[in-house]
Amino acid sequence: MSLTNGLEIPKETLDAEIQAFFDSAPPLKNRVDISEKLEEFVKKNSLPSGSGGVRKVVCVTSGGTTVPLEQRCVRYIDNFSSGYRGAASTEYFLKAGYAVIFLCRRGTCQPYCRSLPDDPLLECFEYRDESNIKVSQPHSEAVRNAITKNRAAVTGSLLLKLPFTTIFEYLQMLQMIALSMRSLGPHAMLYLAAAVSDFYVPWKSMAEHKIQSGAGPLDMRLVQVPKMLLVLRQDWAPKAFCISFKLETDSKILLEKADMALKKYKMHMVVANELSTRKEEVVVVRSNEKVSVHRNNSLGDNDVESPLIELIVERHSAYVNNSDI
Amino acid sequence: MSLTNGLEIPKETLDAEIQAFFDSAPPLKNRVDISEKLEEFVKKNSLPSGSGGVRKVVCVTSGGTTVPLEQRCVRYIDNFSSGYRGAASTEYFLKAGYAVIFLCRRGTCQPYCRSLPDDPLLECFEYRDESNIKVSQPHSEAVRNAITKNRAAVTGSLLLKLPFTTIFEYLQMLQMIALSMRSLGPHAMLYLAAAVSDFYVPWKSMAEHKIQSGAGPLDMRLVQVPKMLLVLRQDWAPKAFCISFKLETDSKILLEKADMALKKYKMHMVVANELSTRKEEVVVVRSNEKVSVHRNNSLGDNDVESPLIELIVERHSAYVNNSDI
Repeated sequence: MSLTNGLEIPKETLDAEIQAFFDSAPPLKNRVDISEKLEEFVKKNSLPSGSGGVRKVVCVTSGGTTVPLEQRCVRYIDNFSSGYRGAASTEYFLKAGYAVIFLCRRGTCQPYCRSLPDDPLLECFEYRDESNIKVSQPHSEAVRNAITKNRAAVTGSLLLKLPFTTIFEYLQMLQMIALSMRSLGPHAMLYLAAAVSDFYVPWKSMAEHKIQSGAGPLDMRLVQVPKMLLVLRQDWAPKAFCISFKLETDSKILLEKADMALKKYKMHMVVANELSTRKEEVVVVRSNEKVSVHRNNSLGDNDVESPLIELIVERHSAYVNNSDI
Repeated sequence: MSLTNGLEIPKETLDAEIQAFFDSAPPLKNRVDISEKLEEFVKKNSLPSGSGGVRKVVCVTSGGTTVPLEQRCVRYIDNFSSGYRGAASTEYFLKAGYAVIFLCRRGTCQPYCRSLPDDPLLECFEYRDESNIKVSQPHSEAVRNAITKNRAAVTGSLLLKLPFTTIFEYLQMLQMIALSMRSLGPHAMLYLAAAVSDFYVPWKSMAEHKIQSGAGPLDMRLVQVPKMLLVLRQDWAPKAFCISFKLETDSKILLEKADMALKKYKMHMVVANELSTRKEEVVVVRSNEKVSVHRNNSLGDNDVESPLIELIVERHSAYVNNSDI
């Protein structure tokens, strides 16, 4: 009899489910390109950094995944997420000296772009004459910051952006990233802030054509996406420091669910947040501590991600040091 | 006994369903602001235009609507649509001298921005020094076009952009627009290119909190969104020229469904398009004609929307002239 590892189902059943999920998923179109970029990025950041130490690398996942309801996709289920948390966290990780693999939902918030209006091109610029472009005054600093800091991070090989849309793309890419980060041992971190679909329609049982709106209601059955966190933790990147997120709208069940995730998936840390207060406060849940982290309105960097990443960097350093012994 | 008007259900039942939909929908947050903008826009464009004639006004709807699955929305069903068709059509309507109310899904393709990369701010600009911003060479014309043409149209009161996200917002805003355009009589046109959800979860029967992913599959029942097209046509803007779109992935049923929509909703025109060839070809379906419209690759404006809007403008002019008699 196989161990259940705190899961409802035995590990080998889970492994089989995950294998079936990947086998039935539409194959990633740009797998070779992603693989090459990842290899190069990890290699560059495996060399001793400027200060002589080894650079830490974090994969930040951000935004929501979609679940197609039709093979020739017209309708899909989406998970709301602006990607604000992931973008902000990426900025603070870069500031702390990390290299960041930013696995983000296409079109969501990008690092250094949080204070820009929705449509920066049409809202921030004007032409004085034919060739003389100018940034409108209230946005000039935000625009300069966005362009120059993004460029510096990308060209310096400290920021690799990999966009996804569907749950199928996300999980295949996450597996590739985790496997490519194995060589970094405990210096690797997975910071899983993306809003990942819990339910999906298996590709093969999906309607080929657009669902017709004839008469009557539409009944849909979605099955659970196999929980990959434990396999990620144990098999894909067993030495990486793993942080998952728990978002709830009901504060009463939040910490209980975060605790459960910590044990069930053997995470090093779970960041618990409630939808309505998520920009003000989060609770860092570990096996031996619960730390409430608040936004500090009196500081310049007044994001809750500022003290959060500070705490995480500290715990990750301790983890690296303990691993060295 | 009431007439059915070609619908499966009597008109009075439909009216009651529509009323119930609006009554149960979460109220529009910025209703007053939208109402003021609309009134001003229609008023400005009701005055005789430069050439002395009366300006025609079209409402172009664009992008997909979402259907929330939870009241405190984490998950929702979305309809895929880049908004490319609506943005392109808007450009050609403006070129033809129309004023355009662009009712578009937040974040989708904007007029004059079709040839820009996904993230124009980060991909098209660079700083030579602290304050000297420059457009990267391959994008310079596209960026200038986007900014100057958009600005000219908006400041000239020829383009009013009204963004929506949910099906509730979309239908409430469409009703407001149609009612505000009544004063324009036959000079008003409704060009309904948005991908509107067929099914939804009534607000009151919706889960208040995030759906939990406990054990087992998720069964969902969605009900049909009441078909508003007939009411829009007959009650909201009875004199406006009305065009709806029919998108299918299965070409075999496409024209039949377009014909059905034409009769059932008394549209003046239905534009039929198939998902895989929608940028190459559409079929304009009217009660007395079916015209296949193709992209002309030898011309400068090589969008299928160029000949499509040309044809529509012609038919709309004939409609206006007939109404005058």
